[in-house]
Amino acid sequence: MTAVAASVEAEPMVLREDRDGVSRLTLNRPSAYNAFSLGLMDALTECLREIDLDHGIKVVVIEGSGKGFCAGHDLKEMKANPDRAFRAKTFETCSKMMMTVTQLRQPVIAKVHGIATAAGCQMVATCDLAVAADTARFGTPGVNIGLFCSTPMVALSRAVQRKQAMEMLLTGDMIQADKAVEFGLINKAVPEEDLERETAALADKIATKSGLVLKTGKEAFHHQIDMTLSDAYAYCAEVMTDNMAFDDAEEGIAAFIEKRKPVWKDS
Amino acid sequence: MTAVAASVEAEPMVLREDRDGVSRLTLNRPSAYNAFSLGLMDALTECLREIDLDHGIKVVVIEGSGKGFCAGHDLKEMKANPDRAFRAKTFETCSKMMMTVTQLRQPVIAKVHGIATAAGCQMVATCDLAVAADTARFGTPGVNIGLFCSTPMVALSRAVQRKQAMEMLLTGDMIQADKAVEFGLINKAVPEEDLERETAALADKIATKSGLVLKTGKEAFHHQIDMTLSDAYAYCAEVMTDNMAFDDAEEGIAAFIEKRKPVWKDS
Amino acid sequence: MTAVAASVEAEPMVLREDRDGVSRLTLNRPSAYNAFSLGLMDALTECLREIDLDHGIKVVVIEGSGKGFCAGHDLKEMKANPDRAFRAKTFETCSKMMMTVTQLRQPVIAKVHGIATAAGCQMVATCDLAVAADTARFGTPGVNIGLFCSTPMVALSRAVQRKQAMEMLLTGDMIQADKAVEFGLINKAVPEEDLERETAALADKIATKSGLVLKTGKEAFHHQIDMTLSDAYAYCAEVMTDNMAFDDAEEGIAAFIEKRKPVWKDS
Repeated sequence: MTAVAASVEAEPMVLREDRDGVSRLTLNRPSAYNAFSLGLMDALTECLREIDLDHGIKVVVIEGSGKGFCAGHDLKEMKANPDRAFRAKTFETCSKMMMTVTQLRQPVIAKVHGIATAAGCQMVATCDLAVAADTARFGTPGVNIGLFCSTPMVALSRAVQRKQAMEMLLTGDMIQADKAVEFGLINKAVPEEDLERETAALADKIATKSGLVLKTGKEAFHHQIDMTLSDAYAYCAEVMTDNMAFDDAEEGIAAFIEKRKPVWKDS
Repeated sequence: MTAVAASVEAEPMVLREDRDGVSRLTLNRPSAYNAFSLGLMDALTECLREIDLDHGIKVVVIEGSGKGFCAGHDLKEMKANPDRAFRAKTFETCSKMMMTVTQLRQPVIAKVHGIATAAGCQMVATCDLAVAADTARFGTPGVNIGLFCSTPMVALSRAVQRKQAMEMLLTGDMIQADKAVEFGLINKAVPEEDLERETAALADKIATKSGLVLKTGKEAFHHQIDMTLSDAYAYCAEVMTDNMAFDDAEEGIAAFIEKRKPVWKDS
Repeated sequence: MTAVAASVEAEPMVLREDRDGVSRLTLNRPSAYNAFSLGLMDALTECLREIDLDHGIKVVVIEGSGKGFCAGHDLKEMKANPDRAFRAKTFETCSKMMMTVTQLRQPVIAKVHGIATAAGCQMVATCDLAVAADTARFGTPGVNIGLFCSTPMVALSRAVQRKQAMEMLLTGDMIQADKAVEFGLINKAVPEEDLERETAALADKIATKSGLVLKTGKEAFHHQIDMTLSDAYAYCAEVMTDNMAFDDAEEGIAAFIEKRKPVWKDS
């Protein structure tokens, strides 16, 4: 599917650029507001899987080309394929892509400009961190076209509080970036001209940490969040005990005590 | 019980008025701050069950008559019936009423003025959305009278963050409407004179959506919220695939592409 | 372990002072920023267990001596004991201490000045309520030294929203007290000179309630929070029915109706 789609479009659907431990992934269907066609979803998932194996990469940034971050599913593609099997495949592929972000060893930052709607808003909710231009807007407008944003809701209702999620889902209204910060959907809203600099600074800061330690913590976060309190403690006490045996923990603690920068060895 | 209670009081305990797909339910025990007597709880639950079957209704608004929204359980009734069976019945009836709001096919908006305390605050926390006058106040003051707000806590602790819920529960203090917005307990606080207009605008906006789609989304929201992430995705991918086959999804997407208003057929 | 540690240090590791139903516990290793050595954790857990049996105590306040609240685990102690068994014991002892706070019959308030980092931040997240000086700072900086704050994360990710927890965990950055209020990590930030007075006022207010009722509510809170909605209602309806049979509920309701102060009998 990716190959076919890629042969039709002139450019690759996802652009990847790596520098200093940070991998930039750009959703690249600007003429379609980077809508998640099957081809784009497969391409992004594939890209993430490669990155998962690449221990030189510490952090991933996902952004959109053109006028906005992502407008959700590709309605034209879905309208052109009115069979249940295609639609089921679309939503399964989307859920798989989102789960890949969650399960990726590297932390993922959404860099948002313009709009992030429906599955685009879901991607923002799914990423571990998000920085947005203060002009960005977020929404789950599926209810307006008779298609409730049920899969986006999975990520949204875990990122923001219930009444706030419900308001977005039931009204279909867009919210501004400052409200998205209040809701906890994104970490920060910055002037448009600072978006690149602020996102890069956040990514670079995280890229100075040990990759193995980031992976350990991110994985544990998602495992423990659905557990009861006592199960979560039993599990995380084990995780931390293992972490203490890492070379990077020894190095990190030694560097801290000696007041110098650590030099990570694990990957 | 309802019949008896209804025969004693001159007016029905719950007033219902429908217009343009919006059903207004007014708690109608103004002399008792709309306290949830068994009779009132049965009447509201009954009313909600009728609305659940009424596909002409898209949204429900719950409000209180007189000086406030609702002051919780009817302490006089409980004091007059000091047997365990009556009390058990009271809390079970209340939980059933709250679950009926959650499980109702239509979204429910709380329109709050004056006070919403104990089970009244629980009702606000339980409704899908809430709009309040900026003079409204919210609290779970049971701890002050030796009766911890344990059932209100179920809804409150799922609507707001833990420390904020604990503060309300352990101190029994009232919070102002602006704080209730910050906590995520309500969606919006507006000047008293705008409360009716703002609530109506929100209800009317939601009433323009497809009833079947609203029902599908609300039901899925409450089902997936207690699931693990992967279970929630598997379930919601199924829900969205089914939703795509609705006539209203076809119509909604077509209307969106043709830049016209959709005409819903499902119900 | 406690005995040995206590014999080495001149002062007890935890100071306890009771007054008017409030027990003040002071972490007392000021030269080590009150770092949680095994000795300190054992001493605090022991202290809490005694308080759990002391029905004269209604509320507990935990604070730190010296320049800050608590800087987390004792890295020197951990470095001096590089065997897996010691480390496993450290994290298990810490989890046991945190669970003891959660399971304590009395509500626990963190009174925070200076810094609360790593397991110190976890303690703040774990306490039922928290008041801080507006100069206090909070963080989970383990990632900076190669040791991800995985056990602190258990409490943090249940106290604040996910993206906010992730930001603290992945960057290791400190946050100011006002941000901690926005995140829901603490209830209130006050000027340094008001910290003692404000904390005392909150503790004293809670100490005017019935101890048995506080215990009932706190226990129910933590039990129901991990349940599904319908299970939580079934459980809490039972809890409230039982609570109605307390002497203190009868007294509290009578006092409320008679507009007088209640005199609690239960303990």
